[in-house]
Amino acid sequence: MDLMERDLTVSFGPWDVDVEAATGETILDAAERGNVGIEALCGGNGLCGTCMVQVEDTTAVSPVDADERNLLDADQLEAGYRLGCRAEVTEDVSVFVPASSRSEGEIVMTEGREIDFEHAPAIRRYQLEFPAPTLEDTLPDRERVLGALESEYGVRADSIDRLALTTLPTAIREGETDDGDLRTTATVFEESEVLGIDPGRVGPAYGLAIDIGTTTLAIYLLNLQTGEVAAVSSKINPQSSHGGDIISRVQHSTRSPEGKTELQDEIVAGINDSVEEVVAEAGIEPAEIYEAVFVGNTAMHHLFLGIDAGPVAANPYVPANQAILRTKARELKLDTNPAAMVSWLPIIGGWVGPDFVADLLVSGVLDSDETAIVIDIGTNGEIAVSGPEETYVASAPAGPALEGAEIAHGVRAKPGAIQAITLDPDTWEPELDIIEDKTPIGICGSGIIDIVAQLFLVGAINRRGRLVDPEDGHGRVRDTEDGSREFVLVDTDEADIEEAIVVSQSDIRDIQNAKAAIQTGISVLLSEAGFETVDKLIMAGGFGNYIDPESAKLLGLYPEVGAEDVEFLGNAAGYGAMYALLNDDAKAEAERIVEEVSYVELAAWDGFHDAFAQSMYLPHRDFDRYPWVKERVEATRGADDEL
Amino acid sequence: MDLMERDLTVSFGPWDVDVEAATGETILDAAERGNVGIEALCGGNGLCGTCMVQVEDTTAVSPVDADERNLLDADQLEAGYRLGCRAEVTEDVSVFVPASSRSEGEIVMTEGREIDFEHAPAIRRYQLEFPAPTLEDTLPDRERVLGALESEYGVRADSIDRLALTTLPTAIREGETDDGDLRTTATVFEESEVLGIDPGRVGPAYGLAIDIGTTTLAIYLLNLQTGEVAAVSSKINPQSSHGGDIISRVQHSTRSPEGKTELQDEIVAGINDSVEEVVAEAGIEPAEIYEAVFVGNTAMHHLFLGIDAGPVAANPYVPANQAILRTKARELKLDTNPAAMVSWLPIIGGWVGPDFVADLLVSGVLDSDETAIVIDIGTNGEIAVSGPEETYVASAPAGPALEGAEIAHGVRAKPGAIQAITLDPDTWEPELDIIEDKTPIGICGSGIIDIVAQLFLVGAINRRGRLVDPEDGHGRVRDTEDGSREFVLVDTDEADIEEAIVVSQSDIRDIQNAKAAIQTGISVLLSEAGFETVDKLIMAGGFGNYIDPESAKLLGLYPEVGAEDVEFLGNAAGYGAMYALLNDDAKAEAERIVEEVSYVELAAWDGFHDAFAQSMYLPHRDFDRYPWVKERVEATRGADDEL
Repeated sequence: MDLMERDLTVSFGPWDVDVEAATGETILDAAERGNVGIEALCGGNGLCGTCMVQVEDTTAVSPVDADERNLLDADQLEAGYRLGCRAEVTEDVSVFVPASSRSEGEIVMTEGREIDFEHAPAIRRYQLEFPAPTLEDTLPDRERVLGALESEYGVRADSIDRLALTTLPTAIREGETDDGDLRTTATVFEESEVLGIDPGRVGPAYGLAIDIGTTTLAIYLLNLQTGEVAAVSSKINPQSSHGGDIISRVQHSTRSPEGKTELQDEIVAGINDSVEEVVAEAGIEPAEIYEAVFVGNTAMHHLFLGIDAGPVAANPYVPANQAILRTKARELKLDTNPAAMVSWLPIIGGWVGPDFVADLLVSGVLDSDETAIVIDIGTNGEIAVSGPEETYVASAPAGPALEGAEIAHGVRAKPGAIQAITLDPDTWEPELDIIEDKTPIGICGSGIIDIVAQLFLVGAINRRGRLVDPEDGHGRVRDTEDGSREFVLVDTDEADIEEAIVVSQSDIRDIQNAKAAIQTGISVLLSEAGFETVDKLIMAGGFGNYIDPESAKLLGLYPEVGAEDVEFLGNAAGYGAMYALLNDDAKAEAERIVEEVSYVELAAWDGFHDAFAQSMYLPHRDFDRYPWVKERVEATRGADDEL
Repeated sequence: MDLMERDLTVSFGPWDVDVEAATGETILDAAERGNVGIEALCGGNGLCGTCMVQVEDTTAVSPVDADERNLLDADQLEAGYRLGCRAEVTEDVSVFVPASSRSEGEIVMTEGREIDFEHAPAIRRYQLEFPAPTLEDTLPDRERVLGALESEYGVRADSIDRLALTTLPTAIREGETDDGDLRTTATVFEESEVLGIDPGRVGPAYGLAIDIGTTTLAIYLLNLQTGEVAAVSSKINPQSSHGGDIISRVQHSTRSPEGKTELQDEIVAGINDSVEEVVAEAGIEPAEIYEAVFVGNTAMHHLFLGIDAGPVAANPYVPANQAILRTKARELKLDTNPAAMVSWLPIIGGWVGPDFVADLLVSGVLDSDETAIVIDIGTNGEIAVSGPEETYVASAPAGPALEGAEIAHGVRAKPGAIQAITLDPDTWEPELDIIEDKTPIGICGSGIIDIVAQLFLVGAINRRGRLVDPEDGHGRVRDTEDGSREFVLVDTDEADIEEAIVVSQSDIRDIQNAKAAIQTGISVLLSEAGFETVDKLIMAGGFGNYIDPESAKLLGLYPEVGAEDVEFLGNAAGYGAMYALLNDDAKAEAERIVEEVSYVELAAWDGFHDAFAQSMYLPHRDFDRYPWVKERVEATRGADDEL
């Protein structure tokens, strides 16, 4: 080879790497010499098709050969796709290496936080070709397939799924070639178990990332070969008919064995409906789905798997398991390939479930030298405080107020919902941001946090959250029939509404309670961690995106970090499931997270009640801990004695 | 302890071992000093109950304590059962150690060949007791149970069956003791997977040994703690309605997917009926059955597991798998505990299945320095020739003639069947042994072998199997309408029958063909093994028991070994399954057998057809190879030119 004259140039995209090559050398050889990572599972023998590349000018390479005709379809050949191990360069040529052919494939998730990771799914497909058995060579079929996997790819799988084995004898014989060999495709999980055997050559395998929220069921169908999201489905969790909250569903499940089965059947049916949608959208068969990774809170985990959920919902809130649970799709009656491997990310505690483990996985805080707080706000606020060495997690029983539920005029985020509010510092006149500018119908979660923060900022409530005397209320504060007070946000004469939209003293108290729960959780974990401030605040979960960070800081809900130090992960739970589907190491990483974090049971923490009482103040009993808030309030109100 | 005066004697049965002991010493301590093997899984802490012994005189030991009251029931205490780790000796005492408490427990199977082996089942039960979780100790349930298994017994199980986990949280809490600990029983497979969690303390686990014959389905229910057979069921294989032979059933299974499912459903339903019978007889619940070990021929294996059986029944007869296949009972809809572990012994070849592997396992020939032949006669005769180093196996296509099927007057072994025959050397008058001495209805398998051997012995047929001229036939040989001949065994005037019971020339030819198949198989394997005679002939399978060895030797069906060197294993397949159920190592041993034996495909063996043609002669073309037969024939007939 050294004597060969390398007078041609192969230019590899998407990296723009130029490699010198000799006439007649294959693209794969050139790539290898130039350290361009092209997958070649069969060792460049024209068997596997993993080294497929797109050639800009097909006249600059050798004509299509038999192996290429066998492994590539007409459309691919038309588009210039060739096998790197077969196409020989004859002139200078530009070659594009698609993601699926890159040996160090890398996936970048760009929604929410950008995460980069190696493309290394648990499910891989191997093209096999081996001699048919004869009277002289009677090795049984199963051992023949496993032997080919090892000899062709070095994959030492030691088992074949029971159902896959039932059709294996006919499947491998259907793939008989003209020269009498048997050609087949094995779909293998973690290089250890063969889940499927198809005759001949088949396309990519698919996987599902499934996020079972108490409210929403979200399903992502991913092409495991390219890492692309092929289709998405989102719907209301069908268990909602038994109550919107976790506790009433758990109660339904413990009342009778039928109740437990009913909840399990409902969520499985809901998932199967969504699977039907996504496979139709992607134009694939359910049997092409070979893996599903689940996230959700601990209760959703138990109810889906049919695990008795009574104990986890009662003191001391201990879940049935910590580890990743694995099973086959058919055990759970999921309409995928029956041999598909189903796993749930692991569990930290009763109220810190696989969804928050996914948050932590995506956040990367355990591998960071920075200090950070991760918060996922929901009915339970999950919190992590992470330092360079240790990470502490807790669940704060915030209740539903922060999401706008159980608030007098609280509504879901929908047209007509007041989602953002500012008050004029002098006149207390509200300026409202209403979704789609419709006639206002109520206040959603982000709005309720805004209004309490604004009431505090302008002095309409004091640091204990109490509304001022109506005499001092600029006509916006008024007494109620039951001897309390309320702040009028939109009166009946201000919009075409039958009843004024108000914030009651009780609403304010609920928000104080909720923020105090989270604030106390953070302070307990900071105290455990031994530091007082952090470099970064990371908000996970959809709701965190909608809260105005300034309002949250004014209330003391968020600690004081600069605006540039607040990061939004978006739907980190769903991303975590996708990540674990596309990179199998992420599952072990999730288990490591569960092993390494220290779970703090807030209710059992010495001094919790005292800390909670101090956090009921706005922003905190000890105002000096929140200098930015103090400055903002003083600047807005002017010198105010009550501070 | 050395200062203690050991003035008492504890006598341990069933071994009659006397051990000196000091007053106040426990029975377990005395046993350990005397090397009497008593199981004590919990280390003698009164937790597991495995050291239970029966004391002859309960006044010679300390009073029953709380642990004993907890682990032993009233009947047991009444019968003198005590915990070895709790009962302290106060006087000389005799103690019986039941099999279940022996740490080197030994099982002796006495039906058929006696086999001794260590009692070491895959399924074991462990009594656990651990603290209930609290807010300060929130280890999840699964990890709590696995941790207790490791800390109390050193058992490092790493998984819990999915269904067992669904009820684990409530099960462990139901076993709460007065002092707030959780007491539970874990049923564990191979120290690796927990299959069941029961509250409190439960009795022994059970297992099934199942032998699916083409004709007969036999099920044995075993107490896995004592090794005792608790109940047995035997019935016709319900697949028989689709044909008595393997080929017609395989054809039914390949004709349509429904046919395959139908055969699988039928055998499963048959097994479930039998399970219902045996659990009723033993007075246990199906959920107490935690393991099932299956044997049968390769086709029965495939049809039961739903594996496509077309390929294994067609040249080159390659089975779907070689290895032991394992699955959960619920996957196959067996009415046992749904988590029960189901395994099939491994496979050597298409016509040498798990049943013959069980034969070899029970025969012990692979670990013997003697040379031996193992034969299991059926429609296919499975043969092994074993030397000190190598073992060769083959399947000989004998057809059903040796079992009396497809013979003109062949019948099953039932009342009225002629099961043994001798002919008077001079008059050729038959002396018949008829089952239950009823009016003769036909000839069963052992009878047909006898009559052909006797015909040869007295000279009624020549060495090619041809009946003599009727003129020389003492009135017993006559011409038939179709130009052939027959030998009259029972004429219409000799018994109250409408049609004479005869042996046709064609019957004789069928027997010659069948014996030639097996004889050729043996000679091929002997030739491969490189020796001509063997120390021992081992007959496996029920049918081998019924064949008269002398008749078999006269035909050349058996090689010439002395009568004392013929051993009968009885239903070795069933015993093999029981053995593997009671001693888990037997499964690995079976896999080693499959790995180590050399399978010889007779049809592909060079010179097979020539050897077969020579074996069509009685006893063989080369008479000198059978000196004992020659001598017998000469002694019976006198000098006979035709020899």
